[in-house]
Amino acid sequence: MAPIEPARRVAVIGASGYGGLQSLRLLHDHPHLEVTFLGGERSAGKRWNAITPFLPLARDLVVRVPEPDAIAAEADLAVLSLPNGLASRLVPDLLARGVKVVDLSADYRYRSLSQWKSVYAAEAQEHPRHDDALCEEAVYGLVEWERDAIAGARLVAAPGCFPTASLLALMPFLSQGLIETSGIIIDAKTGTSGGGRAAKENLLLAEAGEAVAPYGVVGHRHTSEIEESASRAAGQPIRLQFTPHLMPMVRGLLATVYGRLRDPGLTAADCTTLLQAAYRQSPCVEVLPVGTYPSTKWVKQTNRALLSVQVDPRTSQLIVMCAIDNLVKGQAGQGVQCLNLLAGLPACTGLPLLPFYP
Amino acid sequence: MAPIEPARRVAVIGASGYGGLQSLRLLHDHPHLEVTFLGGERSAGKRWNAITPFLPLARDLVVRVPEPDAIAAEADLAVLSLPNGLASRLVPDLLARGVKVVDLSADYRYRSLSQWKSVYAAEAQEHPRHDDALCEEAVYGLVEWERDAIAGARLVAAPGCFPTASLLALMPFLSQGLIETSGIIIDAKTGTSGGGRAAKENLLLAEAGEAVAPYGVVGHRHTSEIEESASRAAGQPIRLQFTPHLMPMVRGLLATVYGRLRDPGLTAADCTTLLQAAYRQSPCVEVLPVGTYPSTKWVKQTNRALLSVQVDPRTSQLIVMCAIDNLVKGQAGQGVQCLNLLAGLPACTGLPLLPFYP
Amino acid sequence: MAPIEPARRVAVIGASGYGGLQSLRLLHDHPHLEVTFLGGERSAGKRWNAITPFLPLARDLVVRVPEPDAIAAEADLAVLSLPNGLASRLVPDLLARGVKVVDLSADYRYRSLSQWKSVYAAEAQEHPRHDDALCEEAVYGLVEWERDAIAGARLVAAPGCFPTASLLALMPFLSQGLIETSGIIIDAKTGTSGGGRAAKENLLLAEAGEAVAPYGVVGHRHTSEIEESASRAAGQPIRLQFTPHLMPMVRGLLATVYGRLRDPGLTAADCTTLLQAAYRQSPCVEVLPVGTYPSTKWVKQTNRALLSVQVDPRTSQLIVMCAIDNLVKGQAGQGVQCLNLLAGLPACTGLPLLPFYP
Amino acid sequence: MAPIEPARRVAVIGASGYGGLQSLRLLHDHPHLEVTFLGGERSAGKRWNAITPFLPLARDLVVRVPEPDAIAAEADLAVLSLPNGLASRLVPDLLARGVKVVDLSADYRYRSLSQWKSVYAAEAQEHPRHDDALCEEAVYGLVEWERDAIAGARLVAAPGCFPTASLLALMPFLSQGLIETSGIIIDAKTGTSGGGRAAKENLLLAEAGEAVAPYGVVGHRHTSEIEESASRAAGQPIRLQFTPHLMPMVRGLLATVYGRLRDPGLTAADCTTLLQAAYRQSPCVEVLPVGTYPSTKWVKQTNRALLSVQVDPRTSQLIVMCAIDNLVKGQAGQGVQCLNLLAGLPACTGLPLLPFYP
Repeated sequence: MAPIEPARRVAVIGASGYGGLQSLRLLHDHPHLEVTFLGGERSAGKRWNAITPFLPLARDLVVRVPEPDAIAAEADLAVLSLPNGLASRLVPDLLARGVKVVDLSADYRYRSLSQWKSVYAAEAQEHPRHDDALCEEAVYGLVEWERDAIAGARLVAAPGCFPTASLLALMPFLSQGLIETSGIIIDAKTGTSGGGRAAKENLLLAEAGEAVAPYGVVGHRHTSEIEESASRAAGQPIRLQFTPHLMPMVRGLLATVYGRLRDPGLTAADCTTLLQAAYRQSPCVEVLPVGTYPSTKWVKQTNRALLSVQVDPRTSQLIVMCAIDNLVKGQAGQGVQCLNLLAGLPACTGLPLLPFYP
Repeated sequence: MAPIEPARRVAVIGASGYGGLQSLRLLHDHPHLEVTFLGGERSAGKRWNAITPFLPLARDLVVRVPEPDAIAAEADLAVLSLPNGLASRLVPDLLARGVKVVDLSADYRYRSLSQWKSVYAAEAQEHPRHDDALCEEAVYGLVEWERDAIAGARLVAAPGCFPTASLLALMPFLSQGLIETSGIIIDAKTGTSGGGRAAKENLLLAEAGEAVAPYGVVGHRHTSEIEESASRAAGQPIRLQFTPHLMPMVRGLLATVYGRLRDPGLTAADCTTLLQAAYRQSPCVEVLPVGTYPSTKWVKQTNRALLSVQVDPRTSQLIVMCAIDNLVKGQAGQGVQCLNLLAGLPACTGLPLLPFYP
Repeated sequence: MAPIEPARRVAVIGASGYGGLQSLRLLHDHPHLEVTFLGGERSAGKRWNAITPFLPLARDLVVRVPEPDAIAAEADLAVLSLPNGLASRLVPDLLARGVKVVDLSADYRYRSLSQWKSVYAAEAQEHPRHDDALCEEAVYGLVEWERDAIAGARLVAAPGCFPTASLLALMPFLSQGLIETSGIIIDAKTGTSGGGRAAKENLLLAEAGEAVAPYGVVGHRHTSEIEESASRAAGQPIRLQFTPHLMPMVRGLLATVYGRLRDPGLTAADCTTLLQAAYRQSPCVEVLPVGTYPSTKWVKQTNRALLSVQVDPRTSQLIVMCAIDNLVKGQAGQGVQCLNLLAGLPACTGLPLLPFYP
Repeated sequence: MAPIEPARRVAVIGASGYGGLQSLRLLHDHPHLEVTFLGGERSAGKRWNAITPFLPLARDLVVRVPEPDAIAAEADLAVLSLPNGLASRLVPDLLARGVKVVDLSADYRYRSLSQWKSVYAAEAQEHPRHDDALCEEAVYGLVEWERDAIAGARLVAAPGCFPTASLLALMPFLSQGLIETSGIIIDAKTGTSGGGRAAKENLLLAEAGEAVAPYGVVGHRHTSEIEESASRAAGQPIRLQFTPHLMPMVRGLLATVYGRLRDPGLTAADCTTLLQAAYRQSPCVEVLPVGTYPSTKWVKQTNRALLSVQVDPRTSQLIVMCAIDNLVKGQAGQGVQCLNLLAGLPACTGLPLLPFYP
C-alpha cells in the first residue's frame, strides 16, 4: 500500500453507531482520505472485521481506545461520532495536538456555550463544560453556505440532519429577503435510523413499523439550531415552527418548508431559478424542475440534496421541499464534505451522488 | 337467520376496491345492519367467497350487476364505492326508488355542481352531469359536525380521507373564531392504500417502500373540499395550504395542521379543553393529553380519530394533529357512521374503536 | 355493570409486553370473560389508561403487584405473560388457591422438567425449579388437538408461535402416518413482534427493516417443542429441521413445512380433503383450495390459521403452508381459546376471525 | 471526454424496467465500460435525464428504437432487459452484426429450445422461435462456475435471481457429490422488486406490505432452470423442491437450501472450508464464519453473495444459506460481470461489494 499523503489520515472515533459506520463506509471508497485510526471504548482491542461481518473493510484496523496522543500520532483529521456532551471532552486535546476535528454531535453547533447548556440541559449536567472560546471558534459545517470558513477552520460542527435539509431549503430565500421572517413552518419527516442505533422501544420495527407520528412538537432541539443559522442569514432574529415526524422506513429525510413570499408576483419558475443560482457551485445539491417533487428514495445512500419549490398564487405561500439521506448528507456524508475541505479537496470528493433505484 | 329489520338492509356497490372491501368487512360485524346486495360489474354472477378467499363472509352473496330496480328490491340503504363520476349515474335512480345513499366518491361533496366540474374536470368530461339539485341537497357526511343533517338526509357524501382528518382538527377552532383564517397550513401524510387498489406504478412496494414524498403540492383536489367546509365554519372564505405526502405504509393518515391563534394567551391546555368540549358527544373522536402525540398505529383498523394540540407561545402558532385510519374513519367507517344515522342508530354503532397493538 | 359470572373472572399478569397487551385487547371484546386483575411489577399502582394511551380499556384497572392471594381474591382464571422461568414461581401458588392458569411462557411446555432445564439452561440457572409434577400435569394448549384435555386441566401451557403453525400443518399427516418421520423440514418466517417488546438492537426498524435473515439455525428452542408433540402424534421419536427467519414486518408468521409422502399416489386434492376433515370441528382453522396459498396478511389480527397444501408428484414431496398471526393464534389468542375451554365455553368464543384487509 | 476503448461500448436495451435501470446505474460507475446506446420503444426520442429525474446520467443519451444496425454502429456489447420471448427476436440480428450479447431474460437459459417452449409456454405462443442452435450455443452466465465459457462466448444468458442464489449454495456440494441428489429443498424469499416494475395489484405496497406469502408452489419456472445446472454439476438428473416467497421489502433475496449429507461426519466447519475453497477465486462471493447467518441487508445494492452453512448432526441435514441483492447479483450486476468477461476484464470490475449499512 502506498504511503498516505500528509494531512489526509483520518481518525474515526465512535464507529459502532450509525454516524461512525457511515463515515467508515464513505471513507472506504474515498480516493484521497484514508482511515488510519479507529476509536471506540467498548470494542477496543478487537479487529473491525471480526465484529462487523456485514461491513468488512479492506484495511482491517484494530479498534483502539480514543486517547488523544494515540490519535494525534496516526491522524491529521478526526471525525467524532459520539453522544452529545462527550465530544467536548476530547476536542480540546485533539486541537492542541494539531488534529483538525469534524464533530458530528451538537456540542459545537451554537456560537454560545450557554445556549448549548440551555438546549442540551441533561448533557450539560453530565458533562460540565467551559470551552466558550471553542464554541465561538467552531464553524458550522453547512458546506454549501460555509465553504470558505470550513476550509480554514480547526473545528467544524457538522449540522444536524433536520437543520441540513431545512436550511438548504430556507437559506436562499432568507438571505435575499424574499420571504417573511415570521410564520415559517418546517414540517419534517425522518426514517428511524435518525434515532440512532442504541436499542429504544419506540424505534423497534414492531412499534415504528406501519406508523407515522409527530414527536418533539414545539421545542425540539433542532429548532434552535435552525433558528441560529436562519437568523444570521436573515440578519434578524427568527422564530419558526419545526415539527419532526417519525416515518416507517430505515433512512431518508424530507423537510417541507412553508414561508410567505414578500413579493406575491414571484412564480414557482422564478423561485426555481433562484434556487438553481444559489446552488450552481454545489454539486451535491440539485434543483428539480417545477412540478417534480423529491422522494427520499431518490437520494438514498447518496450525499445529494434534492430541492423543489412550488408557489400558491392564491395564498402567496412558498413551499420548498428538500429530500436528503439523513445518514449521509444529514450526517456522515456532510462530515466527509467537511473533511474534504479541511484537506484542501473539493467538498464532494469521493461521495456518492447517484442512488441505486429502487 | 332472523329476518332483517326494515330500513336496515344495505347494498354495497363496488366491492372490489378498498372502500367496498372495508365497508363489507365493517358491516360483517354490525349488530343491526345487514348487507343484502352486493353490486359489481366485473365480478357479476360470482360468489363473493369464491373470489375473495381472504375475506369470506358468513352471508356469502352472489355479486350482481348494480341495477337500480334490483338494488331497490333488496336494500333500503346503499353505500357506493365507485370511481368519481360514476356514482352520479346511479344515485338519482336509487333515490327515486326510495333507497337512501351514502356515496364514498367525491361526486356530491360540493354544493355546487359547477365547482365539482372544475375540480374534477376529467371526470366531468367523461360523465356529463346535470344534477345540480342533488348536489345542493346532498349532506356532507362529516359525522361529528353534521349529525342531524345526515340523519335527515336522502343522500350523504362521505368526506375524503384528508378532509376528514383536517376538518376534525380545524373545525373547533374555526367555528369559534380562535385562529386567523389566513395562513392555515395542512401538512398531511397517508399510507398507500389511500391511492386505491388499482395497480399503479408509483404505488408498488418497490417504488413506494422506503420512500417519503410529497405529491399534488398546491392544487390537490382535497384542498377545495377542505376549504368549502372550513369557509362555512368560519363564516368567510378561506384559502389554505394543503400538502399531502405518501408514506411507506399500508394504512393510516396523519394531518398536522398549523394555524395562528388570535389570542396569544391561549395555552395547549386551554386548546385541549376546547377540543374535548367540541367532541364530548362524539365517541369516535378522542383528545389526547397535552404532550401525547397521536400515532397512526393507535387508530389502525378502527374508526377512531385521535387529536392532540400543542401551542408555541413564542410564535402563537397552534399545531393540531389528527390521526385516523384512512380506510375506516377516512372512508368506509365514516360511511357506516352515516348509514347508522340514516337507519336511526347511534353513529358509532358496530364500529371498532380500539386498535390491536402493535 | 352487571356482576361477572362465576369462573369467568380473569387475571392478566404481565401486561406491558405484547403477550399481555394482546390478551387484554382480545378480552376487552369478549362477551363472557372479564379482566378483573391486572398484574405488573414495574407499573404497580398506576391506572392502565394513564400509562397506555393507545389502548384505553373501558374497565380502567389499577395495575397491581401480582401477589397470589390478591389474584385469587379477584380472579378464577389467570393468563401469565412473563419471561421464561418467572411463571414457574407464581403458578404453584395460584393453583394452590384454586386459580386455573394459562401460561404463555415455555415453562410448562415439556412433560419433563429436566428437558426444560436443558433447553432453557440460562433461565434454569436463574430460576431453580423442582415442580416436576406440575410439568407432567400441565396440558399443552394446542387447542385443535387437545381440546378435551385443556377443558379438564388446571394448568395449560400455551404453545409457542412457531410450534403452533408447524404442528397445525404437520399433525394431520403425522397422526395418520402419511409422511415419513425423517427428513421433515420446517422453514418458518416471522414478523419482528415475535421477538417481544423489550428493546433489542437487532429488532430496531433500522436494522430489521428491508432485511430478511435466518436465525437460530439448527438448535432453535422451538425445535424440541415441535418434536415433542410431533413424536407423540407419530408414536415414535421424530427429529426434524426447523429454521426460523426474521421478516421485515410487524406481525404474521408463515410456516412452510416439507415432508415426504409415504403413498406417492396422494394428490394435493386428497391432502386438502384430509386437512379439511381434520379441522372440521375447528372454526379457527381454515383450509384453502388447492392452488390458493395463504398470506400472513389474510390472518392479521385474527385468531385464524390458514392452511394450504401442495404435492409435487415428481418428488412425492408434500408442502403444507400455515399462516397465523404470531401474537394472536400464535400467542394471546390461543391463550384466550384455552381460557374459554377452562371456563366451559366454546374455544373460539369472542375471538376475531376475519381480517381487515389490507 | 476521452474516446472509449474498442470492445467496451455497451448498448442497454430496455431501460425502463428494473433490470435496465440497474444496468445503467452500475455501468455509470464503471471504469472501463461505457453506455453508448440506450434502446427503448416507448421512450424513443426522449432524453434519459428528462424522463428519469431520479437517476440523471453524466452522459445523457437520447433513448432510441432498438434497431440492430443502429445498435451495432455504436456498441460492441449489448445487455438486453426485455420481457421473456422478446430478446430472441433481437439476438440473432445483433450476433450477426458482431455485437456480443448478455441477455437478462430467460430466452437462452435452457440448452434445449423445446424445454424453453414447454416452461415458457405463453411466451412461446406469442413469440414463435426456431433458434435451437443459439440455445445450444448460449452460455449460462453463472459467473463463478462458468467464467471461461463466458469469456469466450458470443451470447450469455444471465441466470434468474433465484437460480443464482440457489446454485451458488448448491454447486460446491453437488459437484463434489457430498449431498444426496434427491430430497433437496430450496425455500427462497425475495423482495417485491423481483416482480418487476410493471404495475400489478399483488405487488402494490398496500397488498404486499406487512405480508409474507408463498407463490408458484411446485412448478415455479425457476425450478427447471435450477435443475438444469444442478443436474449438470451432479452428473445425473436432479429433481428438487423450490418454493419462492414474497417478502415485504424492496430488494434482497435469501435462499435457504436443505440437503442431506452423504457423509454424516462432516461438520459445519468442514462445509465452510469447502465453500471457501470453492469460491477462493470469486471476490463477489463471501463465506461467513460458522454461526453467522447472512441478512439480505448485508448485500443490499452490492454484487456480493453471502454464504453460510450449518449442519445438524442429529439429522445429517445440511443447511446452506445464500443472500444476494436480487437486482444486482441476481440480475444486472451479474450481467455486468458477464460484460466484463466478454470485454476481457476481471469479472468484478467496477461492481459495488460493500453495502451502505443500514
